Amino acid sequence: MKRRTLFKAATALVAVMGLGTGMAVAQDAEKTIIGVSIPSATHGFMGGLNWHAQDTIKRLSETYPNLEFVLSTAGASAKQVNDIEDMMATRNIDALVVLPFESEPLTAPIKAVKDAGKFVTVVDRGLSQEGIEDLYVAGDNTAFGRVAGEYFRDNLEAGSKIVVLRGIPTTLDNERVEAFQKALEGSDVEILDMQHGNWNRDDAFNVMQDYLSKYPQIDAVWAADDDMAIGVLEAISAANRSDQMWVIGGAGMKEIVKRIMDGDKQLPVNVTYPPALISSAIEMTALNFVSNAPVSGRFIIGSRLITPENAEQYYFPDSPF
Amino acid sequence: MKRRTLFKAATALVAVMGLGTGMAVAQDAEKTIIGVSIPSATHGFMGGLNWHAQDTIKRLSETYPNLEFVLSTAGASAKQVNDIEDMMATRNIDALVVLPFESEPLTAPIKAVKDAGKFVTVVDRGLSQEGIEDLYVAGDNTAFGRVAGEYFRDNLEAGSKIVVLRGIPTTLDNERVEAFQKALEGSDVEILDMQHGNWNRDDAFNVMQDYLSKYPQIDAVWAADDDMAIGVLEAISAANRSDQMWVIGGAGMKEIVKRIMDGDKQLPVNVTYPPALISSAIEMTALNFVSNAPVSGRFIIGSRLITPENAEQYYFPDSPF
Repeated sequence: MKRRTLFKAATALVAVMGLGTGMAVAQDAEKTIIGVSIPSATHGFMGGLNWHAQDTIKRLSETYPNLEFVLSTAGASAKQVNDIEDMMATRNIDALVVLPFESEPLTAPIKAVKDAGKFVTVVDRGLSQEGIEDLYVAGDNTAFGRVAGEYFRDNLEAGSKIVVLRGIPTTLDNERVEAFQKALEGSDVEILDMQHGNWNRDDAFNVMQDYLSKYPQIDAVWAADDDMAIGVLEAISAANRSDQMWVIGGAGMKEIVKRIMDGDKQLPVNVTYPPALISSAIEMTALNFVSNAPVSGRFIIGSRLITPENAEQYYFPDSPF
Repeated sequence: MKRRTLFKAATALVAVMGLGTGMAVAQDAEKTIIGVSIPSATHGFMGGLNWHAQDTIKRLSETYPNLEFVLSTAGASAKQVNDIEDMMATRNIDALVVLPFESEPLTAPIKAVKDAGKFVTVVDRGLSQEGIEDLYVAGDNTAFGRVAGEYFRDNLEAGSKIVVLRGIPTTLDNERVEAFQKALEGSDVEILDMQHGNWNRDDAFNVMQDYLSKYPQIDAVWAADDDMAIGVLEAISAANRSDQMWVIGGAGMKEIVKRIMDGDKQLPVNVTYPPALISSAIEMTALNFVSNAPVSGRFIIGSRLITPENAEQYYFPDSPF
């Protein structure tokens, strides 16, 4: 029974230390320290993720005075490895929540934390070896593609023509695109083209410019990512064709969500792949220490359709993303 | 942004109601009501689940004064349908956490709750129609069989002979047994027999009595469930063969966990399939209202090996199970 165990350990330590400073020691001994290691805020999505990590740590620190957090951000794998070793050596963390910068170089250092008996939560990117972490939290790439595809299927007339922008060539991108295509199967919607915009605003601008010069009829665009959607919208605007097609991005960037809230016809909906998934990971890890709920396992966060009706709950004006 | 929305709604209501009773109204308006509907405590596992539901509701009510809970238990599907309709009609719940007594008759009533815009969490047993619930929380039957199988594989000498007791013939039981067999593949452990003990103590006693009379050498028993393990242990004791074989049950019944803590050689380990999964479901549903963490999706709780070293964290002496 975790809660009681924590209390007993603290009481025992007070007994050993004597009564004089008992109260202060008890409070200190009861502290559970959770390390959070994430990539730096180098682009929009990661900026949002950093903001949500801080927001969640603030909420949990206020709710549970016995929880303490150590947050570190890294712009490279080597720095992240150092951060984690430092959390173990100087802070003696009880748990680690980590979004690995890369899988391969982080696997051994994270395994060392697990082997030392700590609770380990891995977020979004799996390790190179299975079964190390206690809890895995990630988004659902299949649902991300399916939910978007279903919206195109249900909101376009027969004979409609669309174009797709793909991300960086990865398994993740394949999963999304295959699910999108599957959702459209049997409909009369035609996919004219699918090129890689690499989740990059400028690349997406170039790909869309090319589509616009090639195809006289485009009724809708699956930009599949909000950074790409921004590039796509610029290209459409430059071609003076803004009234001809709508655009669906993805991941819930705040500027895009705001336009959905405001009823912008060019951006009718969006699909979530929330940077706040780091919040779910930190909250569930905290539950391991403050509740009796089992939190070991696999939590796959569903991708939801953001519509004008529900957009407010996905809008975080203070977040950079 | 959920937290802020909640606050704004309360503030707006205070403004409408006037200033005189503002404070009281604000507190009332901010209450979020979570309905919890579970089967009655008709057997050991469900008794544990009922206890954990109450324990979690107590913890959350103390931690978050703005959360309110309505708990109902049902011994039949018709009663559970009534309970849920009553929660909607008389308490206007904001969320429902439900472990369906049966899938088929509960699907339409739970869909009605979802269609009314409530947050719906389904636990352990899926509905007949996919995609209704926001959050699905369940145990991992494949891991349940695999973890047990790996223990047999790693802790028996070549040439060892074992017997298996199966549950009620169901997909769930098939998943567990197939994963168990797969974990043993390539080892020199022989499965002598696999008969259905139906997760029942008396049936398991009879099956084991039969095994004992048939097989002169049995080195270990996978009872696959702690109720069955109790029946198996009685049969072994009656045959005076307690020193010849060890027994692995499953689900973490407190009497069994206690014996593991005490280093009982006949019961070296156990595999979790925790009745506290209801706690995970209630805690995560609560997070939907008190945090910004996305909690929609699928949480599959891993099955863990309970050993003498870690048994204390799985031991709940106050629970009936």
